Amino acid sequence: MQRVHNFSAGPCTLPQEVINQLAAELPEHKNMGMSLVEMSHRSPEYGEVHQGVIALLTELLEIPETHSVLLLQGGATLQFTMSAMNFNPTQDQPGNYVVAGTWGKKALADGQKVGPSKSAYNSEQTGFRTGPTADQLQLDSNPAFVHYTSNETIHGVSTPPLAGVNVPVVCDMSSDFLTKSIDWNLHDVVYAGAQKSLGPAGLCVAVVNRDALPDSPELPSYLSYQKQIESNSLGNTAPVFAIWAAGKMLQWIKDQGGIEAMESNCAKRSASVYAAIDSSDGFYVPHANSESRSKTNVTFTTRDDSLTSRFLEQAASAHLMNLKGHRSIGGLRASLYNGLSVASAEALVEFMEAFRKTNS
Amino acid sequence: MQRVHNFSAGPCTLPQEVINQLAAELPEHKNMGMSLVEMSHRSPEYGEVHQGVIALLTELLEIPETHSVLLLQGGATLQFTMSAMNFNPTQDQPGNYVVAGTWGKKALADGQKVGPSKSAYNSEQTGFRTGPTADQLQLDSNPAFVHYTSNETIHGVSTPPLAGVNVPVVCDMSSDFLTKSIDWNLHDVVYAGAQKSLGPAGLCVAVVNRDALPDSPELPSYLSYQKQIESNSLGNTAPVFAIWAAGKMLQWIKDQGGIEAMESNCAKRSASVYAAIDSSDGFYVPHANSESRSKTNVTFTTRDDSLTSRFLEQAASAHLMNLKGHRSIGGLRASLYNGLSVASAEALVEFMEAFRKTNS
Repeated sequence: MQRVHNFSAGPCTLPQEVINQLAAELPEHKNMGMSLVEMSHRSPEYGEVHQGVIALLTELLEIPETHSVLLLQGGATLQFTMSAMNFNPTQDQPGNYVVAGTWGKKALADGQKVGPSKSAYNSEQTGFRTGPTADQLQLDSNPAFVHYTSNETIHGVSTPPLAGVNVPVVCDMSSDFLTKSIDWNLHDVVYAGAQKSLGPAGLCVAVVNRDALPDSPELPSYLSYQKQIESNSLGNTAPVFAIWAAGKMLQWIKDQGGIEAMESNCAKRSASVYAAIDSSDGFYVPHANSESRSKTNVTFTTRDDSLTSRFLEQAASAHLMNLKGHRSIGGLRASLYNGLSVASAEALVEFMEAFRKTNS
Repeated sequence: MQRVHNFSAGPCTLPQEVINQLAAELPEHKNMGMSLVEMSHRSPEYGEVHQGVIALLTELLEIPETHSVLLLQGGATLQFTMSAMNFNPTQDQPGNYVVAGTWGKKALADGQKVGPSKSAYNSEQTGFRTGPTADQLQLDSNPAFVHYTSNETIHGVSTPPLAGVNVPVVCDMSSDFLTKSIDWNLHDVVYAGAQKSLGPAGLCVAVVNRDALPDSPELPSYLSYQKQIESNSLGNTAPVFAIWAAGKMLQWIKDQGGIEAMESNCAKRSASVYAAIDSSDGFYVPHANSESRSKTNVTFTTRDDSLTSRFLEQAASAHLMNLKGHRSIGGLRASLYNGLSVASAEALVEFMEAFRKTNS
């Protein structure tokens, strides 16, 4: 088997060791005569896996006692609804949203189905190229919560943590989760679909500050953070495989040197691709403004858009896969998550330079 | 590796061939240089898997054109909320629920968080041993929908399809899905967590009659059947592994002879265990009344409850695992889903008879 360089935006490349471990251990768990995926989610064996994931997340991200780790389903998309329901927006205290890309826009749209909600920043008119600076945030006097998307996967736009906000802050961190440390003083809910830097699809982590939860109206059991906290996310059957796989990935992250190592690799990968864009004399055109550049999703295009399909074709011949930009913005996108080696990013840079020389 | 006989109520035993296929194919999908779980849910390769599952479900269960197949997350528990939200109960048109066990009770409790809802049958006072007969259903004059649980996993109680109901019928079929054919004239929504007879945990199938959906208020995207139908369940990232695994299981079911074969095996397995109970001269005591017996979860206890722990211990020595009843009712439970061979059920019967002889 020849592994390709896989720049998919998610689900995405995982370390080969992790995939191989999963395949090797899938048929039988610890000499029990059955697979882990055939065991009750209430068995001690699965319990160890479940607690192991929570413990590794807590250790790697230095999650404080105040915050509970939830292992949920339905992806970030269900969290759009769930976070709004739990913070109960009203006419007097609406939800406030940073809209710096497609995902922030979707979060706001779902929030509006739950209760009064508005954008506190919106860069759609300028093509979603920037996140807000502190002085650009237009918050209501007393919002129920502020929601932001730390990394916009489609537009390749990064928004740094919101400082100086005195109401609960909810962050969709799906596409830069586990690539950097998190300041928990600035976050009351962080949620993230697993399928970028944490493992295969089918798991959504939510880390919730218990003290920030309002006495909300009685919510249906699955959608209540309080009830999920009380049941340790085991009120119904857990997505066993996705959680088990996340545990393998977290152990791999720890073995590599933890979040510090992930952050360093993330910086190296993205710096080299942005350098190839910036030194291309206009041949490659970046999408995001330079101060808002994502370190996990590099969005760009070629000067002459007709070159894009040639780029994709020749990249694929060089085993550089899934570099097509999202259909809503076109162009090119290199997604550079934890599972992508620095060597893969270097292979892309080498290809980009050769392609530019041939086609300038 | 010595495979055990695994009577877990879910997640549960799967055919060894299915587990082995998953393990063998996990590292690389079709010479693509990556695993299927590393590919975009919008890739043609994943699309084939996704459509394959829908096609096999449609074929095996003879799902008519009127009904759409959704591949969701959040388990049956999220469907408690989602089904109620989509059928929009009001004071004039409340949700009506059949409560014949723990799951029906939970469905009603979540439905009541969504809107006015009441039980149309409730057997809790008699210990959840029966499903309703047609004349026991106490429906409102014009309910928004009627919800029932075809098989109560914890109490081992079966409820046959509700006939003669003129409003939408919603059925939680989690623990007998794919063990019998379904009369689609009698069902507008059938949902089922996968982790019994369809595969590992992490997927919930919902089959929805498009014509039965009311013009509901605008719902958040994940929770709207209409939006899930429009996006073919791909509005957000699909739980790729769970869906892929379900596809392998569905192919296995087809190869075994389809639903007819599953129904026949299901009848054989449960008949032999019930026969061991009924012929035990009172040594084994069944939980459910005989007319409401589940064919997938046989709940019983020993005449003398002190024998239960000895039973479990000796059964485990004979590689008969996970026979403990749910903590809420105690006793014993043998879960007999599609992945459990008739031979495993026979091994249990043999053990039950030997144990009775030794301990009578």
